[in-house]
This record gives sequence, structure tokens and C-alpha cells, in this order.
Amino acid sequence: MSRFLSSRYRELVPYVPGEQPAGQTYIKLNTNESPFQISEKAAAKALKGTRPFRLYSDTGCVELRKALSRVYGVPAERIMVTNGSDEALDLAFMAFCSEEVPALFPDITYGFYRVYADVNRLPFEEIPLRDDFTLDLSDYDKKRGTVFLANPNAPTGIALRRGEIEAFLASRPDDVLVVDEAYVDFGAESCVPLVAKYPNLAVIQTFSKSRSLAGARLGFVIADEHLIQDLNTLRFSTNPYDVSSFTQALGVAVLEEEAETRKNCLKIQENRAWTTEMLTELGFSVLPSGSNFVFARTGKMDGEALYLALKSKGILVRHFNNPRIRDFNRITIGTMEDMRALESALRSILA
Amino acid sequence: MSRFLSSRYRELVPYVPGEQPAGQTYIKLNTNESPFQISEKAAAKALKGTRPFRLYSDTGCVELRKALSRVYGVPAERIMVTNGSDEALDLAFMAFCSEEVPALFPDITYGFYRVYADVNRLPFEEIPLRDDFTLDLSDYDKKRGTVFLANPNAPTGIALRRGEIEAFLASRPDDVLVVDEAYVDFGAESCVPLVAKYPNLAVIQTFSKSRSLAGARLGFVIADEHLIQDLNTLRFSTNPYDVSSFTQALGVAVLEEEAETRKNCLKIQENRAWTTEMLTELGFSVLPSGSNFVFARTGKMDGEALYLALKSKGILVRHFNNPRIRDFNRITIGTMEDMRALESALRSILA
Repeated sequence: MSRFLSSRYRELVPYVPGEQPAGQTYIKLNTNESPFQISEKAAAKALKGTRPFRLYSDTGCVELRKALSRVYGVPAERIMVTNGSDEALDLAFMAFCSEEVPALFPDITYGFYRVYADVNRLPFEEIPLRDDFTLDLSDYDKKRGTVFLANPNAPTGIALRRGEIEAFLASRPDDVLVVDEAYVDFGAESCVPLVAKYPNLAVIQTFSKSRSLAGARLGFVIADEHLIQDLNTLRFSTNPYDVSSFTQALGVAVLEEEAETRKNCLKIQENRAWTTEMLTELGFSVLPSGSNFVFARTGKMDGEALYLALKSKGILVRHFNNPRIRDFNRITIGTMEDMRALESALRSILA
Repeated sequence: MSRFLSSRYRELVPYVPGEQPAGQTYIKLNTNESPFQISEKAAAKALKGTRPFRLYSDTGCVELRKALSRVYGVPAERIMVTNGSDEALDLAFMAFCSEEVPALFPDITYGFYRVYADVNRLPFEEIPLRDDFTLDLSDYDKKRGTVFLANPNAPTGIALRRGEIEAFLASRPDDVLVVDEAYVDFGAESCVPLVAKYPNLAVIQTFSKSRSLAGARLGFVIADEHLIQDLNTLRFSTNPYDVSSFTQALGVAVLEEEAETRKNCLKIQENRAWTTEMLTELGFSVLPSGSNFVFARTGKMDGEALYLALKSKGILVRHFNNPRIRDFNRITIGTMEDMRALESALRSILA
């Protein structure tokens, strides 16, 4: 820290991304990346379709929003594209919270929510999940503020049903609900169909997981068009040229391969079922997951010890140093080859 | 605006980027883009060198920072890479200003500075340029705060000498100076050599102009490593995966073609000299430019009228609706073909 750092941020604790080790070859089950590659055809097509790099990218992301509009059946006016869904989340904290409107989110959820509240100096309340890590929406009933829900939640993987969320939305028309659907494509129910009906709903998704584009940095928001306008007010006040021309073209190319995306998502769900069964057989408790990871603990070992033992065997998983979940590890679902390697490492560690 | 927009931002006036018309073919001299394309070889090499898109991009931008380190002769610890230089500017306003430390910048400069002060709710002061649009650094002498200087300045194109900036820096060791060198490669003097000596200096540059990569979104900061740490604290609290894998690879590929970059910059300077002479012959006053644009006015016509007349002839330039500069237009330097088309349009408009 320099002596010049703003007094606002001297206590700020940044987000810590999952390890991305260079050089060594790990089986990476720690950052919920997809094990599938996009086709070389899609990448080559995107490069060909990119407007010349010498020109600025399209701040309106018109072609990509058209493609999203087609795939999601939502008018382009209700869509905004961002540099990863993290940017969308930051803009949503800025746009829909204030001194008078706190951010509300679970105590156990995506760790960046708390950082977004801090960096934007917003009041917030972390509302505890139940003991079984399910979320009780009635805990939010008496609280005014903008609610941020990851659905499925991370790192638990547990999903709410769309019907529950709709009832919640309808019960609080004067508060915004932001549903972060980073993991929704792996079997959970999306709230996108509710956007037309609720002017207080913003749904955030990403190309990072189900569309295998974590490295391309592409997220989007689907919401009432007035909320989209608000988000764009902030976007045009921070970084209007946020999404590169190539990333926009890559998004379009990958949306033309939706069948591939669906197939990959089903494969992850199959591998998740196999992994859940395998872990259960080995004595783990595994939370019910609607995402591309499972959250599991073994009674036999401390969570951090297991994380370190797996790392020493060349497998990275994610451990969080939070008292309520320190027994757990979050394990990304990879290929069957990855999951079989995990099984054999676990058998040898637990033997 | 929705009724949900934060009370903080209901008066916020976003930045307005230059027009990027789709469909019609204009000669675009309005957003200071490069007229040169990067080589197809560089783009293809970058695509090949990109880590698989399924994996997250490197938040450390290690390879690109190494390449920048080589080209600029600065240790990688003093370099941070961002999603365009706009992101770097936003982070610098956040990191180095506060309630007690206002932002100080000229009344006529890059329009986003004021938006960054507003969106971050920072006190700021706009300090008038002299009547001839030069900047008098002694105007800042009695004022405490973080100074943001575009050098060369935009939209005037006028540059300060490195020696003047160094004397200024040395005179205010307790205040940060941010020098925005978006246009420095077209003949002005960079402050990068001062970074090793001054812990209160941050230099921001971009690949958008001299390296013909406006659409790739790539900026960087060179500064004392403690300032870089501060900026990274904010970067890891907003969008740590800000730069896509492909953009990082493209940056590396283009840095391997520095001779090409230098050649392009010299060509722009030649074309600028020609354009300045041509405009002067036609009766324009042209401010002395160290950048890839000129700022010029004709006594014969209102600035906006000229902008519209050129637009109707298929040439886009940039007009700013600011009382002090409303007689002017900012004209990007393109190819000689572009500049000859400009000449003939001007001759016909002014006839």
C-alpha cells in the first residue's frame, strides 16, 4: 500500500480469485471452468467476423444482443452485455443500492458480493443460510433493500425453484432482485421468463461456464428495459467500450452452436451424478447441486487438509476459510477422466 | 431511468463516446482511431497463442507485462494491464482521490475525467487553460490534490515537455500526478523515464491509437510499484479478470512488431504536418499538435455547422459543445487519401 491510497480504501479487502497456477499441470477442479473447448471453427469464424481492430468496439454490442435476443426470446432492449458477469454485478450494486437501500445477500454465497458492497461503500446485510445451507426467502421478508441471489448458489450449488423466486418478487415490488445465474444452465430453472412481468428483476448470466468462454470475458444482463437503462448509465460512466470486438464476435459464433452448449451441459450433469454417487460411497456428504460443481465434506478429514492432500496429488479443488464451511471443498465437475482421477486420489488419501 | 436507480446517480451525466455509425461508410476522423491495420500474421499468431478459452484469463497478465517490460525498460512490478486505458483512469480516480484529496484537471481535456470524478463522488476542480489553450502548471501550485494531465492534451493536441512535468512533480511530492499518455507516441515526450525516480507518478497509456488496437481494449499503467499495488487493490475489488486471454495475446504479438508501430507513428506525423499546412492555407487556425489529431477552427463558419457540412459529405470529425471550444473541430489524422478527401470537402464547403 502506498501512502497515497485513498482513505476510503485503506481497509478494503479485495476478492481472491481461485489459483491459476502456471507451469505445473494440475487437474483444475477449482474455478468452475468448463472442461470443453469451443470449436476451432467458432474461434476462426469469430476472428474473421471481428471488425478491424483499429476501430473501437461497438459500445452497443448490437450483433451480440441480437443473437442473445434470438436465443433467449427477449427483446434486445432488455439485454446489456458486459466484460464478464463480474462487471455486471458491480454495475448492479452501483445502480440499485445506496445509503438508503442496502444490499442483502446470504452469508454464504459468491464472495465478491461483499467486496462490491465494500468498494462501493454501500450498507449491506449478510443473511445466514439455514443449517443445511438452504436459503429461506422469508428471512428477507421484513428487510428493505436490493437482494442479490446466486441461483444456483455458490459455493453450495443449491438452487431455488423459479416459482419460489416469483412469489418472492411479487411480494416486494418496491425492491430490486438481482439473480446471478452463472450456473443456471446445469439443470436449474432460469428467471429469464419472469423479466417481462417484473420491472424489479435483473438476471445476470455469463458465457464463462456453460459456454466454455471463461477466458473471453463475456457476461450479460436480462432485465426490464428501465433497469437496463440505469445499468447503461453506470456503464457509460465507467467503461463504455468494455467488451472487445473479438469477444463480441466470439459470443455470436458460440450462440450459433447452442446444440453443442446443451450437449455439454447435459454431459456435466451426468458427470455430476456419477461424482455425487462416488463421493457418497466414499463417505462424503454432498449438497444437492444444480451447478457444474459439488460442495462436499468428509467426516474423516479437515477441509483444508483434504484440499492440500489433493493438491499434492496434482488435483486442485477450492477450499474457503469461512468458519461455517471450512469442512467443505468445492469440486468442479470435469470430464469423466478428471473425475476418475479424483476418485483414485481420494481413495488413496482416505485409505 | 427507473424508479430504482440509486439516489447517488440520478443526476449523473455519462460520457458520450464519438459516433460509431453502422451501415453508412464514412471517412472516420472523429474518434482518433489509427488508419492502419495490424498484420494478419499478428492476429493469427495471437489466436494460436491464446490459452484455451475455457480457462480464465491470467489476472496477472504475466506474459504481456513481460513484453511491456522489455519494450519500455521498466520492471514488470511497475506495470499493470487494464481493459482499455479508461479502466485505468477510473481505478486511478478511485485509488488516489477521496473526500480530502480532490481531483484537479484542466477545464478543457478528456471529457471522461469529470465523469470519473462524478461517478466516484469525488470533489474536483477544473482549472482553466490559458486563452491560447496551453496549460500553465503554476496554476496548480497552491492546490492540493491528485492532478490528471492528458499529455498531449485532448482535444487540443498540445503537449507539455517532460522537463516541465518533472519540475512540477518534484515540487509536489505529497500529491500524485497521473499523466494520461494516450497520444504520446505521435511525437510528444513520455514521462515513463521519470517513474523510477518519482513515487508519486502514474503514467497511463493505451494500445488503441499508436498500436491500432482500439477494438481490442487494452491499456496499461506504468508507476511506482506501491501505486501499482494500490491500483491492483481496486482492480481486484472490481474486475480482476478484466483483460481477455485473446487481448493479452494480441498485445504480446503487436509488441513484437514495434518497428511497424514506429513506422505508423511517423507516417501519422507526416500526414499531420501536411494536414496542418493544408488547413492553414484554407484559413484555419490550427493548434500545435503532438497527437494523432489536430484541433482547428475557421473564422468563416461555426464549428458545429462545419461538422455537419463535413458529415453531409461523408466525413466525420468531432465537435464538442463546450462554450470555449465550440468554434473548433477535432480532426483525426488518417491516411493521405483520407486527408485529401478532407481537403476537397473543405474547399467545396468554404467556397
